[in-house]
Parts: sequence; structure tokens; C-alpha cells
Amino acid sequence: MYYTIKWEGDSVSMLDQRLLPAEETYHSYANYRHVAEAITDMVIRGAPAIGIAAAMGIALGAKSLDTDNMDSFRESMNAIFDLFSATRPTAVNLFWTINRMKKIVASGTDVTALKEQLEKDALAILEEDITVNKTMGKNGARFINDGDTVMTHCNAGALATGGYGTALGVIRAAIEEGKKIKVFACETRPYLQGARLTTWELLKDGIDVTLITDNMAGHFMKKGLIQKIVVGADRIAANGDTANKIGTYSHSVLAKEHNIPFYIAAPVSTLDPDTATGEDIVIEERSIDEVAYIQGVQIAPEGVSIKNPAFDVTPAANITAIITEKGVIENPKEKGIMELFR
Amino acid sequence: MYYTIKWEGDSVSMLDQRLLPAEETYHSYANYRHVAEAITDMVIRGAPAIGIAAAMGIALGAKSLDTDNMDSFRESMNAIFDLFSATRPTAVNLFWTINRMKKIVASGTDVTALKEQLEKDALAILEEDITVNKTMGKNGARFINDGDTVMTHCNAGALATGGYGTALGVIRAAIEEGKKIKVFACETRPYLQGARLTTWELLKDGIDVTLITDNMAGHFMKKGLIQKIVVGADRIAANGDTANKIGTYSHSVLAKEHNIPFYIAAPVSTLDPDTATGEDIVIEERSIDEVAYIQGVQIAPEGVSIKNPAFDVTPAANITAIITEKGVIENPKEKGIMELFR
Repeated sequence: MYYTIKWEGDSVSMLDQRLLPAEETYHSYANYRHVAEAITDMVIRGAPAIGIAAAMGIALGAKSLDTDNMDSFRESMNAIFDLFSATRPTAVNLFWTINRMKKIVASGTDVTALKEQLEKDALAILEEDITVNKTMGKNGARFINDGDTVMTHCNAGALATGGYGTALGVIRAAIEEGKKIKVFACETRPYLQGARLTTWELLKDGIDVTLITDNMAGHFMKKGLIQKIVVGADRIAANGDTANKIGTYSHSVLAKEHNIPFYIAAPVSTLDPDTATGEDIVIEERSIDEVAYIQGVQIAPEGVSIKNPAFDVTPAANITAIITEKGVIENPKEKGIMELFR
Repeated sequence: MYYTIKWEGDSVSMLDQRLLPAEETYHSYANYRHVAEAITDMVIRGAPAIGIAAAMGIALGAKSLDTDNMDSFRESMNAIFDLFSATRPTAVNLFWTINRMKKIVASGTDVTALKEQLEKDALAILEEDITVNKTMGKNGARFINDGDTVMTHCNAGALATGGYGTALGVIRAAIEEGKKIKVFACETRPYLQGARLTTWELLKDGIDVTLITDNMAGHFMKKGLIQKIVVGADRIAANGDTANKIGTYSHSVLAKEHNIPFYIAAPVSTLDPDTATGEDIVIEERSIDEVAYIQGVQIAPEGVSIKNPAFDVTPAANITAIITEKGVIENPKEKGIMELFR
């Protein structure tokens, strides 16, 4: 059985998602700096999984500090927090995790006890994530009918989380309820998370999955082959506007055109009440080589101008419901996200 | 200066489009059978370019026949026509070309004169194609404003034709009128004609081109970065519904959502009055390996189900105007295409 990320006491082990589907290779990182690099280099990706990796990296960093002095410990921890904050700036779960770890450090007075607490919390964050996903799945499964074909984008699955997944968790929960569900996975250029990861983990679970290129989505919606769309989220603003993998916005417009319900599945930690609207979400621009090269093969001419925004923003108006572990926000355009914080 | 295809008296030279953008390699075929193979193997692609290659291959075949006897010449020519008919059986222009060459052979009585006439006609087909494209460009250029960024999909350029291009011809004509134009080229999965070919030929001409993945189109439309969309066509039904490369339909829906004018540029030979609506256009399903592998690199797990429709249909209602060499059909939903045949 595969795993996304595992705590090994004095190291963190991760499945190298860059090598999927060709190779199932795990790396064990004993140095917290290498955990941070692994996040930046996308050995591991997916907002919840990034949060877990950061938590484990921070716990590992704390363990490696050779001091009993609280002041010097705090100072070193601040540098570690800064290191992890810079890995993937759009993922809100990252900052949620870092803040949780920061509070622990701020509240303690004993270095040894703090190191233990940070390790315990990192493990708790992993376990909580899986529990959250299963609850989210149950909350969302009622929107998926027996016989539906559900389209998804990117990978919001076990590989993007501690396990079970957010969007794919909703699909898994519907299947566990006995419904027959087919999945259309959009390949998700440029990084191909759909082609490489979503298909891989659904095949592992024996779930009926069909791969399409992103630009086929509208064609199959028009043909009536897709009944529901469920995707994850990287950040959800107070008004319900949602940042997710580039391409999500286009799918939401196509869904509206074809009257197909469009769902976001994401933990409450993805909801960001401090960000008023999608306009305020900073979109990460990634290396243009992700577009120009596919696994080392050059597909664009040398020197051509390329854009590579990693995310886009889907307005709340295009979202049928936001599914979380704390409940479902139907019609987020009217309601925003604040009811889940009351 | 590059060329798509060139007649060299006793051979046909072609740019190998399979190797672009990494390599600019030309093959010179002295044997007509190798010209036919080059079409089948997609050394050259694009419906007009295929027609020209077949015409040149047929002229080359005629030249190679070592006979003065009309009966034996006709018999050999029929075998050559059959050979080229089988290269890319779905390309309409191929049969249009072959029928034109067949009529020449049927009308003649002298082998030497026929060989000369076939050579002359092959050259004429190339020249006519370029003239058609330049006229189409002039007809379309008025829709493109100074300062516009124009998005295009696939390659409807010089590389798909004898030269100048259809959709890219409209852009070239606008630039020749002195307008400053930027181009956004969608990469066009799965075969990447946008990434590999459109960027390459626009860079060669010093035209400002930015490559994006197909799923970024909606994001940049929402951001206001795209003012016009111009694409080619593979077949246009009597009511104006248009089959073009997969992904075109999604772009048309996104264009409508963002009030961006959406143009089709295609020669009158693409208009098919015998096909009533887009529903009647048969969509070619191509090998799933085009999705699963990118230039030999596997990007999807072994055994996953994949769909690969080569085209989709954009309803006339989503098309602002169809630009041809004979004139422009504005609002094709109301008018259909028949006015250009009257």
C-alpha cells in the first residue's frame, strides 16, 4: 500500500510524486532543509499535504537544534518558520500549520518539552487531516448520484493530503455508500497532476477512471457525459471565491454553460476569512520550464515567452457548494464562508 | 527563411514538422512514394499543406514514369492517385487536389504535355493557396485593432498551408497594416501544434507570441489580457457550426462569457453545404498514445482508459464571424454559410 507522507522519528519519508506514474519511489529526509526543498521542488504537492510536510519538517528542524536555551531555540525556530513559509506561497494550509506550530513555540518554556510537543502535533496534523477528509467525503457524498460520471481537475486525492483526499474523498465516500461512479480526470497541464497522480491513485483503488486532456472538458460536457464536477481548493476567500489549480476557472464557466453542478471540497483550514475576495489572492507564477519541457523533453522553441500561473480564481457565483468537514456551504455567492466560523 | 514545402524540379522538399521546435530539418524526396510516406507519417500536416504535398507528389510520380504511351501512363497514374488517396483519408483538400489532377490526366492526349501540365498545376495549387490566405488575411484584418492581443489555438499558420496561414494569416495581415498585435498561442494538447509550431513560425517572423497551456485561456480572458480569438477550421456546416481542433469549443464558451469576439478563418473549400449542422460532423478518434505519451515520454499509468477526440464542434451561435477569401460571414447563426455560394 502506498503512502503520501510518513513520520519516521528522525526523518520524514515521502512518495516522490514527480516520478509517478512511471516509478513509485520514496525518499527519506533526515534534514529539515531537504523537507523544505522537497515542498518547493514538488516531491510532495497538494495544499493539505504541503501543510503536513511543513509540520513534519518543522518538528524535524526543532529536533535538530542543539540548544537548551529558550531564546536561542526561539530564534532558530523563527528561521525555520521563515524557511517553510517561503516554500509554496499560495497554499493557505501551509500558513495555518506554521501558525499552529508558532503558537506552540510561543507558549512553551522548556526546549525538550517543545520539541516533543512539535513532533506530537505534526503527527496529529496528519491524523486530523485523514479524519477531516473522511468527514468531508461523507458530507459531500449526498451530492453524487448513483450512475454519475464526476469530472475532477488536478489531484485533490490521497496524494494531495494525508490520505483519502478532498475532492477524491467525496468520490470515495459516494462509492462507499454503494453508488456506481465513474471519474473523468483532466490531465492538468502543465504539471500533469491529473494524468500522473489522479489516474494512478484511482486505478490503485479500482475506481473507474478515464483520462482526458483539459481542453476536452467542454466537449464532453456538451455531449452530456459529465454529471458533476468536484475539485479541491488552495484558498477560499471570505466571499467564497476559490483559488485552485489553473484550469479550474475555465471548467467552472463550462459547467455553468451546461448546467452541471460544480463543487469545491476543501478542509476549513483552506477557508481564509482574512482574504475578502478572490481579487486579493496572490497567484503563484511558476517556472516557465514546466510548460516548455515535459519530463525533460522540450516542446516549445527556445526563447519563446511563456506564462505559468499555477492557480486561477473561480468566483463564488460559479460554485454550487463548498463541501468541508464542518458542513456544506450551498450557494456560497449568497452566504460567503463565515457561517462555518460561527 | 523557412518553408513548409517546395518544388525542386525533380524532388519535393519539406520541413519535418515532427522535429519542431527542437530541429529545423528539411527532407528532399526524389521518389514520389516517399512523398506519400511523408504525408502518412505527418512530416507535413494541416489540410491545405497535405493537398499541396499530394499535388507535388503526383507531379513527381508522373515525371518518373518512363513511357510515352498514354494508356500505360494513365494506368500508372491511377496507381499513383490511389497511393496518395490512402495517405490521410480524412483530409478533404487531399481529394480536392487528387480530383483536380485526375481531370488533367483525363483531358490530355500527350504524355510529355501531361507531365508538364501536372507539374505546372502542382505549383499553381501552392501559389493559389498562398493567394487565398493573403486575401483571407486582408478580409479579416479589419476585425483586429491596434494594440490587441489575439489568442489562437492549434496551428492554422504557414506550416499548415502553402504559406501565410489562415488564422495566423489574419494576424499577419493586421500587422502588415501597421497594427501592433500580440499573440497568445494555446499549446493545443495532445499533439501540441500550438507549442511546437505556432510559436515557432511566429518567432521566425518576429511576431510577439506568448505560449500558454490550453487551460489558462479562461484565466487570461478574465484578466482582460485577450481582446480577440481567431482560429482555423476543419469543416464548416451549412448552418455555420464549425469543427476544429479539440479545445476550440471550450474557448468559444469562455469567449462568450467574457464578451470576446471569436473568429473562424478558413478557405471557402472548408465550407461544406452538404453537412446541415455540426451534429452531422463525424469526429475522428485518434490513438490514445497521443495523450499517454509526449514525444515518447509516458505521462499516464499503463492501462488507464483515455479518450482522444481530435476535434470538437463550435456552434455558430458562439462565432462572431467566419472569415474567408470570398468574404466574411458575420453572425453565422442568423445567416449560415450559403450566401458565399450564391
